Amino acid sequence: MIDATHDARRRSFIESANGHPDFPIQNLPFGIYSKRGERPRGGIAIGDEIFDLKIASEAGLLSGEAKRAAEAASGPRLNGLFALGAGPRAALRARLADLLDAAGAERRQVEAMRPLLLSRATDCELHLPARIGNFTDFYAGIHHATNSGRLLRPDNPLLPNYKHIPVAYHGRASSIRVSGTEVHRPNGQRKPQAATEPDFGPCRYLDYELEMGVWIGPGNALGAPIPVGAARDHIAGFSLLNDWSARDIQAWEYQPLGPFLAKNFATTVSPWVVTPEALAPFRVAQPPRPEGDPRPLDYLMDAADQLTGAFDIALEASIVTAAMRASGAAPHRLAASNARHLYWTVAQMIAHHTCGGCNLETGDLIGTGTISAPDGVGSMLELTRGGREPATLPSGETRRFLDDGDEVIFRAYAKRDGFAQIGFGACRGRVVG
Amino acid sequence: MIDATHDARRRSFIESANGHPDFPIQNLPFGIYSKRGERPRGGIAIGDEIFDLKIASEAGLLSGEAKRAAEAASGPRLNGLFALGAGPRAALRARLADLLDAAGAERRQVEAMRPLLLSRATDCELHLPARIGNFTDFYAGIHHATNSGRLLRPDNPLLPNYKHIPVAYHGRASSIRVSGTEVHRPNGQRKPQAATEPDFGPCRYLDYELEMGVWIGPGNALGAPIPVGAARDHIAGFSLLNDWSARDIQAWEYQPLGPFLAKNFATTVSPWVVTPEALAPFRVAQPPRPEGDPRPLDYLMDAADQLTGAFDIALEASIVTAAMRASGAAPHRLAASNARHLYWTVAQMIAHHTCGGCNLETGDLIGTGTISAPDGVGSMLELTRGGREPATLPSGETRRFLDDGDEVIFRAYAKRDGFAQIGFGACRGRVVG
Repeated sequence: MIDATHDARRRSFIESANGHPDFPIQNLPFGIYSKRGERPRGGIAIGDEIFDLKIASEAGLLSGEAKRAAEAASGPRLNGLFALGAGPRAALRARLADLLDAAGAERRQVEAMRPLLLSRATDCELHLPARIGNFTDFYAGIHHATNSGRLLRPDNPLLPNYKHIPVAYHGRASSIRVSGTEVHRPNGQRKPQAATEPDFGPCRYLDYELEMGVWIGPGNALGAPIPVGAARDHIAGFSLLNDWSARDIQAWEYQPLGPFLAKNFATTVSPWVVTPEALAPFRVAQPPRPEGDPRPLDYLMDAADQLTGAFDIALEASIVTAAMRASGAAPHRLAASNARHLYWTVAQMIAHHTCGGCNLETGDLIGTGTISAPDGVGSMLELTRGGREPATLPSGETRRFLDDGDEVIFRAYAKRDGFAQIGFGACRGRVVG
Repeated sequence: MIDATHDARRRSFIESANGHPDFPIQNLPFGIYSKRGERPRGGIAIGDEIFDLKIASEAGLLSGEAKRAAEAASGPRLNGLFALGAGPRAALRARLADLLDAAGAERRQVEAMRPLLLSRATDCELHLPARIGNFTDFYAGIHHATNSGRLLRPDNPLLPNYKHIPVAYHGRASSIRVSGTEVHRPNGQRKPQAATEPDFGPCRYLDYELEMGVWIGPGNALGAPIPVGAARDHIAGFSLLNDWSARDIQAWEYQPLGPFLAKNFATTVSPWVVTPEALAPFRVAQPPRPEGDPRPLDYLMDAADQLTGAFDIALEASIVTAAMRASGAAPHRLAASNARHLYWTVAQMIAHHTCGGCNLETGDLIGTGTISAPDGVGSMLELTRGGREPATLPSGETRRFLDDGDEVIFRAYAKRDGFAQIGFGACRGRVVG
């Protein structure tokens, strides 16, 4: 629902918010932050600052549902907030927009408390937003599935189930880390095609995968599926997600049970949880399927979801090599894509995930799968066609896959005429040997 | 290490323990139990009774490491106990054996407190032993891998990686339930080979998988692999595990990323955690590999693990159909197997799981994979050769896969001349429509 919180004319008295590429007053994403020596707790990003939810609540600035939501977000994890569902979360976001508004009735009161309520983001550490019970990674980016499938099966890249099933696998929850955490190049078994036996050593084909992460809200009981039409109620918000992948390890290990060590050494998520409410103006219809594609089965079909279940969110992946860092070069954009290119909506993913009775729990994380576009790809595997065609960077360096010292940075922005741009902040990770 | 706790001559003053098939004084497995209206807490199984760890600790019966372990097991989950590792756990088990010994110095004192310390197991409810952060299912039963592979690839049942890699995939932690929980037949997409399109409906080929579950103790930090020689220190204990499987859903969904809905609707574990200490007499050498099998890579090889890393534990799977239940018939044993038939030891599984840096967390659960034997199979898929050769039960009924109302019961016993038999208790689940 588009409402006054999306009004592009709104400005905040926090000047850095106005025109901020990620965090204007129209966004207000939730996260967990800490200041030096203090315990992590919930906050929202506003411009270059972080607004404290616990202090706002204790100061009497909030009431009713908004207060309930802020209290649930006052501890070191957002699971309590996620469990409340959309109502309290939306009420809190709307109230915070009023409190931070340059023309707000309570501006003087809030400004007087500014040293308590607001911290410069650069003075804060950001943490994982939630305790993640389970992580599921989908494969809903059809261009990625086609591009990577073509490397194995040139004439038949997509498997027969792809257009019927939102294909997914269970990932590893324990190794998910927040943006900025270093990623250790994993060891593992590697067997080049020419070799007769595998050997053990550092991954040679380390890659990133550009995905969106979906945080689960209330969730469902075991044995009680979430219908596709109700799935939206279980989305607490979105982050960016890097599904780091060890391609050589994956190629040798993945049959018949899927990727394991190739993925479980690290997954990176961005710290800010962008709410469905903030993204409301950027909902779009699910793109029409190519002629001849099968109609999804009924349990995956909902009229409202088809009309407004996709998101127009621009995505980009950039790299900074050690040499670029040393020379002060700006990140080099490897690819641009858009969340519109997902073949399945998040509601379809949730409906499928639970259709057999599997229970989603509050704080669970879902990855969409790598989102490539017809003209931009979300992994090195695709960019260099399996390493066969190295990419040349502006620094003159070439890459087939990632080298030690390379930092991968994802960003995402939602833009629409008449609305303020909102963004996700960065999802960063640097590879170390 | 075999010590006085394994002495077969030891008897308990709890008469039901002496000659008990599962829980003599030589076993003393840990679990979480509750009495009507009381909160779940840690106990140990002794004969037909459960001994309370919190009360024992508060009553001053324990000291030092044993007391520390009991306190860590006094809440509703055993994670705290698991985190302490072998030392405190072994000290507590040894002390409990002394307290429960018919010839124990403190017998009178313990007997005087019997109404407080001990409850009849039939008066108690049993719970999941731990909060399970992550669940990983291996595929280490080579006879199962061969039998099930043969159904797909008659001439080449094992894939090339099988004898090099302890193959595994990430399972779903949220849907793991304790023995006795009903299992709902899942809905899902099914596409019989003759059909051109999938449809959606109840699984037609519902199956069980006979596995052992391994509970993780201290665990490791991200990026810090557990060497195979140290893996033993991270095993908190063992249960039985039923990896319920929807074969028709699996066949259609599993490529290229592995099983998902075919598995995540339910996993059942037995409630008692049998300790590595109790199982010490039943450690055996890893069976010699068939001639021509490759030598595992160094990171999987440890001399002590090869000599004593396998377990001689007899396993069995039984069925009780609704008709059998109505007629009062005893469970029918479908298969007998043995944990010796695992191609990889648990230490090898742990070393492999962490070799790329993936962190195991206290309370994580590992499944071994289905353990079939040359002369006994751990699933209906194998028993009926993919449903082609129905099994006839003593009741006259036939089964290709499981029907609604069927209860599957796993049991396991460790036996060795000169030692008291110990068992795992039952892992039960009844299929409901």
